[in-house]
Amino acid sequence: MDAERQAGQRGEKGDSRVAPGLVRFELLHEDKGTKARRGRLHTPHGPVETPIFMPVGTVGSVKGVGPDDLLTLDAQIILGNTYHLMLRPGEALVGELGGLHQFVSWNRPMLTDSGGFQVFSLSEKRKITEEGAAFQSHLDGARHFLSPERSIEIQETLGADIIMAFDECPPSTSDRAYLEQSLARTTRWLHRCEKAWSRGRSSLFGIVQGALHEDLRKRHAEEVCAVDLPGYALGGYSVGEAPEAMHASVAYSAPLLPRDKPRYLMGVGTPIDLVTCVEAGVDMFDCVLPTRCARNGLLFTSEGKLVIRNASFAKDPRPVDPACNCYTCRNFSRAYLRHLFAAGEILAMRLNTIHNLHYFLGLMAEVRRAVSEDRFAAFAREFRERSRAQETERTRGR
Amino acid sequence: MDAERQAGQRGEKGDSRVAPGLVRFELLHEDKGTKARRGRLHTPHGPVETPIFMPVGTVGSVKGVGPDDLLTLDAQIILGNTYHLMLRPGEALVGELGGLHQFVSWNRPMLTDSGGFQVFSLSEKRKITEEGAAFQSHLDGARHFLSPERSIEIQETLGADIIMAFDECPPSTSDRAYLEQSLARTTRWLHRCEKAWSRGRSSLFGIVQGALHEDLRKRHAEEVCAVDLPGYALGGYSVGEAPEAMHASVAYSAPLLPRDKPRYLMGVGTPIDLVTCVEAGVDMFDCVLPTRCARNGLLFTSEGKLVIRNASFAKDPRPVDPACNCYTCRNFSRAYLRHLFAAGEILAMRLNTIHNLHYFLGLMAEVRRAVSEDRFAAFAREFRERSRAQETERTRGR
Repeated sequence: MDAERQAGQRGEKGDSRVAPGLVRFELLHEDKGTKARRGRLHTPHGPVETPIFMPVGTVGSVKGVGPDDLLTLDAQIILGNTYHLMLRPGEALVGELGGLHQFVSWNRPMLTDSGGFQVFSLSEKRKITEEGAAFQSHLDGARHFLSPERSIEIQETLGADIIMAFDECPPSTSDRAYLEQSLARTTRWLHRCEKAWSRGRSSLFGIVQGALHEDLRKRHAEEVCAVDLPGYALGGYSVGEAPEAMHASVAYSAPLLPRDKPRYLMGVGTPIDLVTCVEAGVDMFDCVLPTRCARNGLLFTSEGKLVIRNASFAKDPRPVDPACNCYTCRNFSRAYLRHLFAAGEILAMRLNTIHNLHYFLGLMAEVRRAVSEDRFAAFAREFRERSRAQETERTRGR
Repeated sequence: MDAERQAGQRGEKGDSRVAPGLVRFELLHEDKGTKARRGRLHTPHGPVETPIFMPVGTVGSVKGVGPDDLLTLDAQIILGNTYHLMLRPGEALVGELGGLHQFVSWNRPMLTDSGGFQVFSLSEKRKITEEGAAFQSHLDGARHFLSPERSIEIQETLGADIIMAFDECPPSTSDRAYLEQSLARTTRWLHRCEKAWSRGRSSLFGIVQGALHEDLRKRHAEEVCAVDLPGYALGGYSVGEAPEAMHASVAYSAPLLPRDKPRYLMGVGTPIDLVTCVEAGVDMFDCVLPTRCARNGLLFTSEGKLVIRNASFAKDPRPVDPACNCYTCRNFSRAYLRHLFAAGEILAMRLNTIHNLHYFLGLMAEVRRAVSEDRFAAFAREFRERSRAQETERTRGR
């Protein structure tokens, strides 16, 4: 357990400790050498220590692991996907069964996205109008419609602690004329979201878009932050642009968001991305990277990345990461994990996922300590240097 | 935890409590009304309370669950498959890494089969001679050879607490002439197994074959039991014959095995099979049924079988089995499990497997109590009646 965490929280039913009202951000400390911040987000389902990485539970489960594993890993908050859940099993069903927390048996904080990103990235034959987005399900081609009002309705029915405004995430290659038009519409959609929002148990966050254009990011941040909300996000990153371009844009954009509210960078990212964007003042992250890589056999370690299927691990009795204390590393050898992966055993998915999530959550715990101790600039620099050296060594085929 | 179990056993490394020597069977009680027995099998990795059901860990993992889940379920002993493990990752590798217990991180008792059954059921282009069985791997077509000596060598390298004699499991449709020839060879192979066996940390069990012929079962039991071994098994059942024919043959054959040694019925079976064959005097069972059914969405409950994908469960807030105390039933609804299964989420496999194994292991705990309390005849009769009534109700499409 993370020593920062309050004790006594459990995911099993009957332990519900739901505080009323919206989330509240407590800014605990600002690093002296960087823009990094140490905070605590108070939610109806308990506190979240920031900066934080949020595992993604796309269709109602964080792929590969159970809520018991997530508690053991001390995951503080997980995500659900509005797009996936509205299609299957449908938000009405989840609502009837007591909401998403109860449905998936997770009694800690949750966040749902608006569905916008998936409509634009996954669905077929989508059509965007001022009213919203018509689309066909990627599962069965059924026709659906998402609007700001409908997205908020779905998310409030799911009942996550944090819900996101319905926005358009235009392709990073969009021309400036389209971007301007899209941003203006996203702002109008934000006002509709804010109006539709009940201010009940779910806290609405606004989303700033603007691709890699500084002036557009600035203008849109002003428009979005003019709406008084419990938190704000940066969207439209990690959609194909170079990491350096993303880092530079986030470094510019994050400080445009209010100092006293949580700042959430959506869909990001790699360990270097996390460290670099914390340095820019971001508090919250989510990404499928650790879970998806785990299922593909790519493991993150303190010594760099490790492709578990490689023949070099066939007889390797060492744990994935000798410095790691996760269930996987405490109990199993690289040779065993390689064997499970090669044999297509289900357990491979779980053990790899436990390890990768432990790495990402552990990295964020280190990040929080470094911020608290005013040594984040050195921490971030050393982390990036070490990571790049490891990657160079790895790709040289050592 | 089963109250019968000694406390303190753990699967994590560093807790190894390996007693030297062979397994020893302690016959604790014989039911007054049936041939059922309550026993305790002492092994180098701790005791096993019998009658017992052993989950099958085919390729080095009990499909769908981890050793942590098996400890939570209080599984007392698990199986490994010689055929699968010799092909992948190879027994030499497992041996180099400290043996199967250490490789799979399981510090309780284990049993390996001889590989014979899989050679005859899975491999391609097999050829049986007096020397042994030549076959091609079902994975890559590579040529392999298994003989009594080689099977024992592989199994002793894997290092399970119980290892099985290399036998032929002829098709149940074999004619009598072939069966007689096969049985004679299996007896000669048993003598070669016994000679090859080091009497080290692994205890060799002999296997009685004979299909459904009483006279052949009797003759072969005499031949096999003439070799003094720590335990004996009945093979060649559950290979396509009618359950009633199997039950009748086991009722005849089980008492042919020594009273003071454990009796293991290989590859069996359904809950009714288990109860009925305990009544015949069987102590040990293994079967892929609970784990395989779990992966196909068929769940065993105190109220009968449940096909979790059925639309009738879409909004069902109840646990799979309201009378069940497993992790799955304590935390998740039928609606959620149906959703996970429909969405193809990995977690569905784990939660279903946990539930089914809990059912099978819980049933055997009930069986042990009923035997200890001399009420097994009534228990078995009521169990069969209830199961058949439930099945009739289910198949009538209620």
